[in-house]
Amino acid sequence: MPSFVAPTRDSRFIINEVLKIDNYGALPGFEGASTDIVDAVIEEAGKFASEVLAPLNASGDQEGCTRRQDGSVTTPAGFKEAHGQFRESGWGTLSAPEEFGGQGMPHVLGFAVEEFMSSANMAFAMYPGLTNGAVNALLVKGSPEQQATYLPKMVANEWLGTMNLTEPHCGTDLGLIRTKAEPQADGSFAITGTKIFISAGEHDLTENIIHLVLARTPDAPEGTKGISLFVVPKFLLDEDGNPGERNTLMCGAIEHKMGIHANATCVMNYDGATGWLVGEENKGLAAMFIMMNAARLGVGIQGLAQGEAAYQNGVAYALERRQGRALTGPTDLDEKADTLMVHPDVRRMLMDARAFTEGMRALALWAGLLVDLTHVAASEDERTSADDLLGLLTPVIKGYGTDLGYKTATDMQQIWGGHGYIVENGMEQFVRDARIAMIYEGANGVQAMDLVGRKLAMNGGRAIQALFAEVGKEVAAAKGDERLADLAGRVEKANGELQAATMWLMQNGLSNPNNAGAAAYDYMHITGIVALGLMWLRMGQTSASALDAGAEDKPFYEAKLVTARYFGERFTPEAGALRRKMEAGAEAVMALPEEAFARA
Amino acid sequence: MPSFVAPTRDSRFIINEVLKIDNYGALPGFEGASTDIVDAVIEEAGKFASEVLAPLNASGDQEGCTRRQDGSVTTPAGFKEAHGQFRESGWGTLSAPEEFGGQGMPHVLGFAVEEFMSSANMAFAMYPGLTNGAVNALLVKGSPEQQATYLPKMVANEWLGTMNLTEPHCGTDLGLIRTKAEPQADGSFAITGTKIFISAGEHDLTENIIHLVLARTPDAPEGTKGISLFVVPKFLLDEDGNPGERNTLMCGAIEHKMGIHANATCVMNYDGATGWLVGEENKGLAAMFIMMNAARLGVGIQGLAQGEAAYQNGVAYALERRQGRALTGPTDLDEKADTLMVHPDVRRMLMDARAFTEGMRALALWAGLLVDLTHVAASEDERTSADDLLGLLTPVIKGYGTDLGYKTATDMQQIWGGHGYIVENGMEQFVRDARIAMIYEGANGVQAMDLVGRKLAMNGGRAIQALFAEVGKEVAAAKGDERLADLAGRVEKANGELQAATMWLMQNGLSNPNNAGAAAYDYMHITGIVALGLMWLRMGQTSASALDAGAEDKPFYEAKLVTARYFGERFTPEAGALRRKMEAGAEAVMALPEEAFARA
Repeated sequence: MPSFVAPTRDSRFIINEVLKIDNYGALPGFEGASTDIVDAVIEEAGKFASEVLAPLNASGDQEGCTRRQDGSVTTPAGFKEAHGQFRESGWGTLSAPEEFGGQGMPHVLGFAVEEFMSSANMAFAMYPGLTNGAVNALLVKGSPEQQATYLPKMVANEWLGTMNLTEPHCGTDLGLIRTKAEPQADGSFAITGTKIFISAGEHDLTENIIHLVLARTPDAPEGTKGISLFVVPKFLLDEDGNPGERNTLMCGAIEHKMGIHANATCVMNYDGATGWLVGEENKGLAAMFIMMNAARLGVGIQGLAQGEAAYQNGVAYALERRQGRALTGPTDLDEKADTLMVHPDVRRMLMDARAFTEGMRALALWAGLLVDLTHVAASEDERTSADDLLGLLTPVIKGYGTDLGYKTATDMQQIWGGHGYIVENGMEQFVRDARIAMIYEGANGVQAMDLVGRKLAMNGGRAIQALFAEVGKEVAAAKGDERLADLAGRVEKANGELQAATMWLMQNGLSNPNNAGAAAYDYMHITGIVALGLMWLRMGQTSASALDAGAEDKPFYEAKLVTARYFGERFTPEAGALRRKMEAGAEAVMALPEEAFARA
Repeated sequence: MPSFVAPTRDSRFIINEVLKIDNYGALPGFEGASTDIVDAVIEEAGKFASEVLAPLNASGDQEGCTRRQDGSVTTPAGFKEAHGQFRESGWGTLSAPEEFGGQGMPHVLGFAVEEFMSSANMAFAMYPGLTNGAVNALLVKGSPEQQATYLPKMVANEWLGTMNLTEPHCGTDLGLIRTKAEPQADGSFAITGTKIFISAGEHDLTENIIHLVLARTPDAPEGTKGISLFVVPKFLLDEDGNPGERNTLMCGAIEHKMGIHANATCVMNYDGATGWLVGEENKGLAAMFIMMNAARLGVGIQGLAQGEAAYQNGVAYALERRQGRALTGPTDLDEKADTLMVHPDVRRMLMDARAFTEGMRALALWAGLLVDLTHVAASEDERTSADDLLGLLTPVIKGYGTDLGYKTATDMQQIWGGHGYIVENGMEQFVRDARIAMIYEGANGVQAMDLVGRKLAMNGGRAIQALFAEVGKEVAAAKGDERLADLAGRVEKANGELQAATMWLMQNGLSNPNNAGAAAYDYMHITGIVALGLMWLRMGQTSASALDAGAEDKPFYEAKLVTARYFGERFTPEAGALRRKMEAGAEAVMALPEEAFARA
């Protein structure tokens, strides 16, 4: 059975040393996030993840969720107790506002904790994870009364939340939603319709479940401009705000899925269920996007998290399994074979995994800091520029992060050879669980279109220009250090590819939007490479400085420099190939008549 | 539930028009393989695959195999009957020698049929597939008596065969094998030991199972030079050659796996089981490699096959599912949304799948023809050069073919969005089944080392030089046709990358073998791209000529030219990036001390 140790040293390195959280101490929420508190929270969260959640990962996968005839859903053995401990330890409240019982800590810290929980047990972590999204939507769009009614319980994880978007005939294209919301005399709405793929739609973890549901009011305009958001609790609240009468909604079925078996993916039937409008009528999609954006970052972190968990178990096997001899001659003469660690191709996969997970962790935590800065940075300018970068990076973190997370899980399974294909060894679960992250919260192709079709052009391309400049700055700063000069040159080249690719899109995407559509995925990956390159430049400089300053933990910083070099050598060359692919344009992509696709 | 139609038109195009099987009519075995017979066999096999095997694919996955307390194994419902039909239809005997009851048809045809069966039901196709490997080993290394005893029944698929290599502590490193073979007074051996991961090790499809087992005789030298091959039937034969006394071997357990649930993967316990030496003592590994090489091609075909099956279902969904509008404006105004087919990113995945499956099909069938030519080509020179190319291409077909097969299955699942993650829709089974092909019969990293460490250097690099020359020839031939000039230029460039990469390996791999080890995987992929490029040049020329000649099936050939162009545009740029990656060398790959890999 696989094990998991939270990579706390790495998270602390990024938060304290690379992002230098201490520098933000004057900002609201950061007062309490001094280095020692960060360290304590990270270590405690890591312990919880590895000791409480990780042991339930394989058993949860095997047992899955059970739906009973009455529509109730039982989570796997141990989940209810683990959720109780999670709630009592306050992990759900960490970066929620103090006003509603949260601890008001920075999101950057919350993201680090989220990664650990998701590595240890992705299916479990989704229950509170989705609640965070619902909390965010209510924080921004809910009425004061709604906030007072739901948020304290949700923040405390006494009630969990869900997002209800997808219907059988529509996922990506939410304009097609059919679920109806009929206004009632008392100001509430009667919600009727079927939602599918509702993660955590029904379970036994909490006494109430707060559903956020997209639906149409009677005379709503067609398409996305006629969608409203409603809050629909499983149990209606009595006068004291406690769960009372059962609402007329029900889990009609749970799906059999490739992975995340321990998270109940529900068909939710709303049968005139009582709900209340959140925010303005017909503006539901905008409200939902508040949840979606947070959720997309969370899903990117899931990709990272599965990659990390798989990496650790790939390492464990490579250190233990003996097979063959080193190409340069036997290393362990008193054994009949050397460990897998001696084989360059095994090392290649492990180093790929390190370069990705450590780089992506830095990127995700930077995004967490950007979330904070959009809210609390001192000046409007700083808030805007954080928001620019966050908007640009969100689809990249989701799309590139989950693609590489899946690749990493697959590679680590590969290290285990045939034993990686056996269920009991747990490596294949990482692959199955990681797979969904490429699909939900907007399939990765949708992320690519969000990047190319929306984020790139916003404000005259201000965000991507800011990224170019940021990379340029770090390249210039790193070039003078011979330990980083090679990396700097390679990231500079990749940044040049991204600039050229951006220029190509400007010149060719407007004249024929299919050119943008056919280029989007490759463009997203180039951006991912450059963004990770930026992270490696920052981590490389931090590590070089630490070594120069005679830091105690020398092996840690030296390993960073090696991995930084590896990233430059093995990740950046891809950027040029991707640009050449996308610059071929849409013609051959779109040329075939539809009937030519069938086989005969 | 997914469906499958054998791509017979494409297979016939490759065999008849590209490989021009008629040109070989004078060679033994090819007399009976005229175009009309090829067409008839292909169509009939396609029908069998889609009508008999495909309907059992999902149910077989769901039910899996069951082992009973007595060690017997039951295959899923319908498998025994399907195997009966398979046997009666003679699909197992197609390219087996007539001497032992086979039909003596060329392997190129056998490969085409194998692909269909594997697309329709990979777990099923493995039962006769492994038997083919065992038949090959007995054909080459078995004594005349052994051949007479086992081959007629095995060729007829009345008995199935297995390969027993792996033990709990050794897979790749067969030198560590511990299973013992004690010589008995009657000339037989008593085999004792435990083998794991034995596909089709036990089942209810046939009355006997013929195991080929690697073991050590008492004074065998250590390592791979002390391994012998034994034939060990489940039931010993009576005087009439019929199954009699039960041999002392047993299936101790079957594995719970990520996929191929309907194929029993067995722990086999040999407890003094009676076996007979096949070929010379201590030369077992060479004998086993006869099976392995055939099996590796078969596994490459599995990658192709899962990619093809997934492709067809990706197309079906893209044609039917309506979501969003074309970027260039709505196409179906009387519907609320256009089909997925209008979206360039969906097309990109479908075209990737076409470029891979059609190119890999051509490569696999060419390899089938090379297998034939190694045996029956008219001159020693021709046989040698076929053998050179076959040896070089085998690890590429296995490694590149299965990597891309898995990628294709994953992409096609992606087209289905959330519905692709649901078990009942069948897309995730393609991914789970395709995954094993990257692992077994030598993990893909082992294939890369076989290519770089063995095949490349053999006979002074004669094989790779022949490939360069072949590509150069086709580039030159295609360049003058404006429909192919772009592709030709791009494949020429990729071939140049391969040549440069080969040169780099020669210069850097000998001085430090780790450079070769760290480069091997990327090198294998470059070779795969060039090999597919060669196939697309050939298919492109054939199609252009057919169009020039006024061929009836115009859309088919036009689609080939589009896909050829797409391959050039979207696959070849990767070659340069891969070369740059590998040329970074082994230093950063191997630099970290082992203890640096652990997290804390």
